[in-house]
Amino acid sequence: MWLNFRRLQRLYSNISHSNLKVTYTNTPKPKPNLETPLAFGTASTDHILVIDWNSTSGWEQPQILPYGPFQLDPCASVLHYATEVFEGMKAYKTEDGKFLLFRPEKNMDRMRSSVASVGLPDFDGGEFLKCLKELIKVDKDWIPSKKGYSLYVRPTMIATDPKLGVVKPSNAKLFVVLTTVGPYFPQGFKPVKLYCDENVVRAWPGGVGDRKIGGNYAPGISITEKVNKLGYSQMLWLVNNYVTEVGTMNFFVFWKNEAGEEELITAPLDSTILPGVTRDSILSLARDWNEFKVSERKFTIDEFVKASEEGRIIEAFGAGTACVVCPVETIHFNGKDHQIPLKLGESGELAKRFLEEIQGIQYGKKDHPWAHQIL
Amino acid sequence: MWLNFRRLQRLYSNISHSNLKVTYTNTPKPKPNLETPLAFGTASTDHILVIDWNSTSGWEQPQILPYGPFQLDPCASVLHYATEVFEGMKAYKTEDGKFLLFRPEKNMDRMRSSVASVGLPDFDGGEFLKCLKELIKVDKDWIPSKKGYSLYVRPTMIATDPKLGVVKPSNAKLFVVLTTVGPYFPQGFKPVKLYCDENVVRAWPGGVGDRKIGGNYAPGISITEKVNKLGYSQMLWLVNNYVTEVGTMNFFVFWKNEAGEEELITAPLDSTILPGVTRDSILSLARDWNEFKVSERKFTIDEFVKASEEGRIIEAFGAGTACVVCPVETIHFNGKDHQIPLKLGESGELAKRFLEEIQGIQYGKKDHPWAHQIL
Repeated sequence: MWLNFRRLQRLYSNISHSNLKVTYTNTPKPKPNLETPLAFGTASTDHILVIDWNSTSGWEQPQILPYGPFQLDPCASVLHYATEVFEGMKAYKTEDGKFLLFRPEKNMDRMRSSVASVGLPDFDGGEFLKCLKELIKVDKDWIPSKKGYSLYVRPTMIATDPKLGVVKPSNAKLFVVLTTVGPYFPQGFKPVKLYCDENVVRAWPGGVGDRKIGGNYAPGISITEKVNKLGYSQMLWLVNNYVTEVGTMNFFVFWKNEAGEEELITAPLDSTILPGVTRDSILSLARDWNEFKVSERKFTIDEFVKASEEGRIIEAFGAGTACVVCPVETIHFNGKDHQIPLKLGESGELAKRFLEEIQGIQYGKKDHPWAHQIL
Repeated sequence: MWLNFRRLQRLYSNISHSNLKVTYTNTPKPKPNLETPLAFGTASTDHILVIDWNSTSGWEQPQILPYGPFQLDPCASVLHYATEVFEGMKAYKTEDGKFLLFRPEKNMDRMRSSVASVGLPDFDGGEFLKCLKELIKVDKDWIPSKKGYSLYVRPTMIATDPKLGVVKPSNAKLFVVLTTVGPYFPQGFKPVKLYCDENVVRAWPGGVGDRKIGGNYAPGISITEKVNKLGYSQMLWLVNNYVTEVGTMNFFVFWKNEAGEEELITAPLDSTILPGVTRDSILSLARDWNEFKVSERKFTIDEFVKASEEGRIIEAFGAGTACVVCPVETIHFNGKDHQIPLKLGESGELAKRFLEEIQGIQYGKKDHPWAHQIL
């Protein structure tokens, strides 16, 4: 029994940071020009973290390699069946030269939950995070000191089996790419218009809308294109009249509820809602402040419309890693635009307060257990 | 105006079969050994059809190339957001040496509908089919003459943009891989057991369950693994008690309905059902025969259970390209196995009749407009 266990241990390895091998590039790329606008996710850095897996021997040696293309068999499972998951987080440089991540253990936990939903292999989140931090150290000069800039960190796992069956993958690749990103709102907040349509559904009860898997994103592309043509930024997704999320952001309303209380409300975590790290942070901060009611509960777009018509909406905003918070100025439902107050001009007071509080932690302006020091 | 139109025409090209370029391999692979079992989708042939696209100039020159890996940027959209669609069809060799496809124009139409749902580019289905037929001609020796063998044909489109935004792709790759496949049932039919669970949902009204896109397949892998451990082959997916499909097959029941009529029933095409080519063929044949009632209408698993308990189920089967038809022997729902009659031992009479009729057309034993001659 003990021998068998030892044998299994030897045969099947988990990720081990102590085995990490680094190969530096000989041809570093020029850093992005910060004088011109930087499109999201285009300025990839000089290196990539890659860890291959196979079902027989487990996780192979983690490697930091010069950034370059993958060779994938045309039959690779990821190209046919969307056996792929990803995460999104940011690395920040503080004014006193430290490098920080924001609650990265939450991303590790969510990624492990995502991979389980598509048959991809589990991994040691702590060891993976240590390797990821080494990658950021190697490419730390890609984080500009300029205000609002950061490094977008994209952990990804794909199934690479070179065969066409819809089966549990036997080969996978876990990798991390980094791209320099600029401020989401270069000139202060820019509020967005959202579009609701009960007949178009992103996720549903019993489905996988709570996992950060590729398949949850592709169908939104053509739908977003349609609402863009109507003059709106994104969908605010409904399920049977219930308000869920925006697809790239969670969604919050701050209103006077029917009982006359000030209440910050967002949909509860079920299979239709991505469990956002920013969402969790906002709820946690608001509960700490203890100045108004904070609710994770189901609410309908009809309730929202009624509150809007009765003048009870104080503000509304999206929340996600890219923007932190994003004020909403209009919500379209059933042929009608509902205007949302923007007390400070481009946002409400609460959205601004959350942005400043969270960015203060991210850029190290205040000590907080959510700031995770890399270097 | 006329000049602008001419300019657009010159700038943006559609697929053109007349431009097809063929580069033959110098290192042909050994053909699969037909004496040992051939796992589905593993025996890829010597060549691949590739047609690249970009949003500026449209579809590039179609190329048949030696089979080999793709080079993909780690940020490629397909690896993160499942911007990918595929098709499945088969090429058959007849006893008198002809090569046939079965209703390939249906696959072209469905693929164009799939690409639209994930923001991938439209294409000329007729020209693409001509190129695909050339690929089959080049690799026709990979179709064994042995009974039940064929060439599985996998058209695929992926977004290759090397940037991380969830946006409409600017670069795509359309390709076709071929793999030799053996008979689905080497020793006569092998009926399957299906598992129903109202709390696990594949597709939803208003969603994209009717498109052959990667994201519809990954979540099924881990769920199938779970039901396999319970002794069942696959899920029979429900939506709010309504019977939909099996995920890799459509689903048919032949029963005596409550009115005492013999009725072949399958769920109607809505956003929860893949519009299967075999499904359509079965419905069409059954309507031609005009021997029993043929219905595309919604029915619940509760109706099925009642019919089973009252002894009104005659047979049930799945239908898809891989198996043509696949008899079902058991359906599990709510803690109980419901046994389905198999009048001929391993199948019912109707499943066998559909199999023989459709395979007769596929292998050229009878002339039929559904048989599409390649060579």
